[in-house]
Amino acid sequence: MKKIEHIGIAVNNLETSNDLFEKLLGAAPYKEEEVQSEGVKTSFFKNGPNKIELLESTNIDGPIAKFLEKKGEGVHHIAFAVDDIVAEIARLKAEGFTILNEVPKKGADNKLVAFVHPKTTNGVLIELCQEAPETL
Amino acid sequence: MKKIEHIGIAVNNLETSNDLFEKLLGAAPYKEEEVQSEGVKTSFFKNGPNKIELLESTNIDGPIAKFLEKKGEGVHHIAFAVDDIVAEIARLKAEGFTILNEVPKKGADNKLVAFVHPKTTNGVLIELCQEAPETL
Repeated sequence: MKKIEHIGIAVNNLETSNDLFEKLLGAAPYKEEEVQSEGVKTSFFKNGPNKIELLESTNIDGPIAKFLEKKGEGVHHIAFAVDDIVAEIARLKAEGFTILNEVPKKGADNKLVAFVHPKTTNGVLIELCQEAPETL
Repeated sequence: MKKIEHIGIAVNNLETSNDLFEKLLGAAPYKEEEVQSEGVKTSFFKNGPNKIELLESTNIDGPIAKFLEKKGEGVHHIAFAVDDIVAEIARLKAEGFTILNEVPKKGADNKLVAFVHPKTTNGVLIELCQEAPETL
């Protein structure tokens, strides 16, 4: 766990929220990306050593749609940068955390990611993310 | 907005959650602090350039008690480091954000702080924080 890589925020409308976060952070998103496997459109803002990721759902049965329906707009997850995601998954599992993806999957922004279930982390959905090797 | 200074997480029991986050982050909290004016006990973990703040309520009418009652444990706020909190409050107010503390107040961890209402920031309670001058 090297730093907060990004905070993921669920939003109803990416375009409207891009404007809002541009005003808040003082800079436009540096990229937008659709992750079809997750049913989301995302945008990323740089903020010093960290990023903010906005997530709009593109699939009414997807995880962001369900989150928005249940809780409304707000913080969806906190992602920590790790050097070795496989080792970190093993370490956290041994510590008693419930890992949702024991095999890391490809996420947005060229990352390998895995999630830790919020029931074991004080209600906070935690993402581990490692820069994906070029060969993937 | 220079970086994510910290993420504030509301918890039911600080001692239990200190153990949990020590396992998660791989390091113990570097300090605990009570902020009587806010009705909270807090602990702070370093994580690279960022921090995680855990907040337990000490006042059943305080903001953390109300948050826990309404939403349960989870992310309470995101704090951004700023160089000049007075200037940042003025900038955000001019951009249409609702500022909850137009005059910054003393927060935990030797900071001057002000909050932005979540109704204007996609449901995310935003804290601005500036290192407090030594004379305060």
